Amino acid sequence: MAAAQSPPPADRRDDVAPAPCPPVIAEIRGEREFVRRLAIELSHAPAPNSVPFGDDMAELGGDWLWTTDTLMDGVDFDARVHNWRQIGRKAMAVSLSDCAAMGTTPHRALLSLVLNDTLAMADGLDIVRGARDCGERFGCSLIGGDTNSWPHPTVITTTIAAIAEDGPPLLRSTACAGDRLFVSGPLGGSILGRQLTFEPRVSLGRALARGARPSAMMDISDGVVIDLARICEASHCGAILNAAELERAVHDDAHRLALQDGKAAREHALYDGEDFELLVAMPPNRVLAAEQLGFLPIGEITRGPGIRLRDELGRVSELEVRGWEHFR
Amino acid sequence: MAAAQSPPPADRRDDVAPAPCPPVIAEIRGEREFVRRLAIELSHAPAPNSVPFGDDMAELGGDWLWTTDTLMDGVDFDARVHNWRQIGRKAMAVSLSDCAAMGTTPHRALLSLVLNDTLAMADGLDIVRGARDCGERFGCSLIGGDTNSWPHPTVITTTIAAIAEDGPPLLRSTACAGDRLFVSGPLGGSILGRQLTFEPRVSLGRALARGARPSAMMDISDGVVIDLARICEASHCGAILNAAELERAVHDDAHRLALQDGKAAREHALYDGEDFELLVAMPPNRVLAAEQLGFLPIGEITRGPGIRLRDELGRVSELEVRGWEHFR
Repeated sequence: MAAAQSPPPADRRDDVAPAPCPPVIAEIRGEREFVRRLAIELSHAPAPNSVPFGDDMAELGGDWLWTTDTLMDGVDFDARVHNWRQIGRKAMAVSLSDCAAMGTTPHRALLSLVLNDTLAMADGLDIVRGARDCGERFGCSLIGGDTNSWPHPTVITTTIAAIAEDGPPLLRSTACAGDRLFVSGPLGGSILGRQLTFEPRVSLGRALARGARPSAMMDISDGVVIDLARICEASHCGAILNAAELERAVHDDAHRLALQDGKAAREHALYDGEDFELLVAMPPNRVLAAEQLGFLPIGEITRGPGIRLRDELGRVSELEVRGWEHFR
Repeated sequence: MAAAQSPPPADRRDDVAPAPCPPVIAEIRGEREFVRRLAIELSHAPAPNSVPFGDDMAELGGDWLWTTDTLMDGVDFDARVHNWRQIGRKAMAVSLSDCAAMGTTPHRALLSLVLNDTLAMADGLDIVRGARDCGERFGCSLIGGDTNSWPHPTVITTTIAAIAEDGPPLLRSTACAGDRLFVSGPLGGSILGRQLTFEPRVSLGRALARGARPSAMMDISDGVVIDLARICEASHCGAILNAAELERAVHDDAHRLALQDGKAAREHALYDGEDFELLVAMPPNRVLAAEQLGFLPIGEITRGPGIRLRDELGRVSELEVRGWEHFR
């Protein structure tokens, strides 16, 4: 799977020239570039190959897939504001969202803790309880891990193993020109609280894997524009968002945040991170299934590259691809 | 597996009263106590149950087991001294050593990086290369992970999934009174360099799982006395070490370090961490197999609790149980 990305399916993609292999460039900027370089470094791994490198989960063997995510105090949570149980919950929920993003069923989890050494042991236990309880609600058992302490901020790593019980995992690399884009809920302003309390869309992901089978799916962790760009890069295509549709996909939190900071609510919807909603590309003949599941339309996949916005008057402009990235 | 610890095998243990369940105490001290509390918190997980909570790996499903370990700059390595490729190698080797400790065969790995944000991207790639190359030597493919950055020291988490191909995993909870204790190589002074360059004993662990089948096995990561105490606690027994045998299990590095710091070389052998040798308890009728594999005898498992030392004159004294622990 860590080999070159899957070629586009021939039946619907024969007119799309595959992008050339990512070049090894001297100057590296940003997380996307780092991940590209990693794909090259890990391209010789003799692994299963139906899930390309860089998707939300990696293949483990048989029907198993797995994912690992690290959260850091001061970046992904704020120990001065959030309580440890909420923080533990988020550590589990972020990885559960990766399972949702592939349409897989989470089964078991490991938790590796690096606790700041001023924490009480009870705080560490609260992290574990928060993670355990969140996992259990989705049938995912926290069964072990690693414990450490140090004088720096707390770091929590969750690893989840899941099974593709409802059909092959849904990838981000198989979107097709003409697919309609949907999100599973309104976007933006998660920093007002949803970043800690969001519901991983595990059931919805499984329902899609079982029935409607989007062409491509991922979860929105870093902002819909940058995550859509990841789908487009992996699928060698572009996308256009419709401003009129987007208006109905702006979360109330984005409107509230806009009142506070003077930015447009739509900016928050497009660029804020940590929505943890599902972003799906639906073939035209399965659009109804997405609508029936309550998904909100936001645009469509295009043949040409780039992420664009069609405004209410039909004018099209390029959208800047930015969002949460490490190594900026 | 996270339920109560396995009862001792009835055939050879009927005279050993099992220790009572760990009490929930108000004051918590040290990593051992934290892990004991975690075992209680996670005791309701509906998981496979042949591997008790707290062993070197946890059960995943089928013949799969997995393990996760986090290394931190300033604790497990020193970025001012070690290069990033060596550090990446160690991150993989520590988890491979957990596979060795259960007699399992490592297959796939994930790596989660939290890089200090002054690092060059090339440094991050070197960590990945070091981990990848180390894994590949043992047939373990690094296939994905997570990348992050922050302004604090670098943190690296490795997760490995392995298969018990050579028989059921070898546990730390099944030692029996009368077993002879062996180590796979001399101990102590790893800080002089072996802490970065040690060889995970994967082949040796598999050979034991296939043939000699120790009663119990683990890898020595925090010092032979504290790790032996973990075997004894999990197996409801004690141990006695023989000073005369120990002399032959003191590493040259321990002697060299003793010359530098004035401590006894044996102290280093007993209490230094990061030997990453295997510690095995062999039934009396399989001692020869351990000797043929080059293992060094150091003592035996006893019915009564505690870790003791028999000196050259036959006098027995209690050994203090200490070594590397977080949350001291």
